[in-house]
Amino acid sequence: MPFPSRFKHCPNCGAAVDYRVPPDDNRERAVCPGCGAIHYQNPLNVVGTLPVWEADGRVLLCRRAIEPRHGLWTLPAGFMELGETTAGGALRETQEEAGADVEMGPLYTLLNVVRVGQVHLFYRARLRSTAFDPGPESLEARLFHEAEIPWDEIAFKTTRETLHRFFDDRRRGQGFGPHEIDIA
Amino acid sequence: MPFPSRFKHCPNCGAAVDYRVPPDDNRERAVCPGCGAIHYQNPLNVVGTLPVWEADGRVLLCRRAIEPRHGLWTLPAGFMELGETTAGGALRETQEEAGADVEMGPLYTLLNVVRVGQVHLFYRARLRSTAFDPGPESLEARLFHEAEIPWDEIAFKTTRETLHRFFDDRRRGQGFGPHEIDIA
Repeated sequence: MPFPSRFKHCPNCGAAVDYRVPPDDNRERAVCPGCGAIHYQNPLNVVGTLPVWEADGRVLLCRRAIEPRHGLWTLPAGFMELGETTAGGALRETQEEAGADVEMGPLYTLLNVVRVGQVHLFYRARLRSTAFDPGPESLEARLFHEAEIPWDEIAFKTTRETLHRFFDDRRRGQGFGPHEIDIA
Repeated sequence: MPFPSRFKHCPNCGAAVDYRVPPDDNRERAVCPGCGAIHYQNPLNVVGTLPVWEADGRVLLCRRAIEPRHGLWTLPAGFMELGETTAGGALRETQEEAGADVEMGPLYTLLNVVRVGQVHLFYRARLRSTAFDPGPESLEARLFHEAEIPWDEIAFKTTRETLHRFFDDRRRGQGFGPHEIDIA
C-alpha cells in the first residue's frame, strides 16, 4: 500500500489541478486553476487495541476476512473517523471487528509507518468477557497465549511490533509504554 | 475551523460525487458514479513541541504571523506531512516556526480536537540554544517563565492545555506524561 494516490481533479469544482508550491508554503500541493482551492494530502491514523484477558494473560487477535492480508491475524484496528477520538475509534474497531467487550486503557504503542503515510495507535484494553462476535471484516476472533501466537501469519508489522513489546514488557514486569516505533 | 469541507467532485476523474454507504461499510462516503472510486475523509494530525530551556525552566512560544489567531502565542506546531514521522514533523515545525535548535524528547500530550477532526501531538524538547530565527509564520519567538505566560493571548486550547499540564507536572515533580486530553 503506497501513499494515497494524488488528486487529479479539484474535489471542490472538478477542474484538473496543477501541482505547484503555493505562496507561503514550501511543498507542492494540488492547486485548482478554476476555483483557486489548495488541497492537502496528509498522513492518516489507524487506531486499535491490544485486548488482554487478565485471568490467564491471553491476547485477542482477529483473522481478516478482507484484503489486504485476507486470512492473516491482526489486532483489532482500522482508520480513525471524523467525529471520534483516538481511543473512541480504537474501541469502535474492537467492537466492530471482534464484538469484544473491553475496558479501555492507556495508549501503548505509536507506530509511524512512513512509507504508506500512516500513524498506528494501539491502546491497552482489558477484556470483560471471552464471548466474541466477529463482524463481517473478521473470519474469527480468538485468544492466544504467547506461545500460541501465529507469528508467521500476522497481517501487519504494527501488530507484530505491538505484540513483541507487550510480551517483552510483561516478562520484565515493567515499562508498559507508550512505545514510539518507526516502521522501516 | 469546522470539519474539512466535503468533496463535491471526484479527485480522480472530476465527476460530481454521490454520498452513500458503500457495500461492506457503515458510513456515508463520497462515491464516484463515473469511475467508481470511494473517497474517505479522516482526521488529521497536528504535531509540535514543548521546547524548554533547562538552565532556567523557561518555555518557548511563537507569536503567529498568520491566520487563524494572528498575533497570538502558540507552541510551535503544524500539520504532519506525508513522508515524515510524528516526531520528525514536530521537529520540522519547531525549526520552521521558531528556528530553534532542539533535542527531541518523548511524546508529552495527545489531544483530540474532535470538533475540527484533528489530533494534536506535542513532544517534549530540550533547547540547545536560546538563539531563535522565527520563520515567515511567526512574528517572534520568545522564552517565558511560568509567571510570564500570556494566558489571555494563547492561540489554541491545545497549547494552553499542554502548558498547564507541564507546569502542574513540574510543580509536583512527577508524571511527565504522556497525557491524553479530549478538547470539548
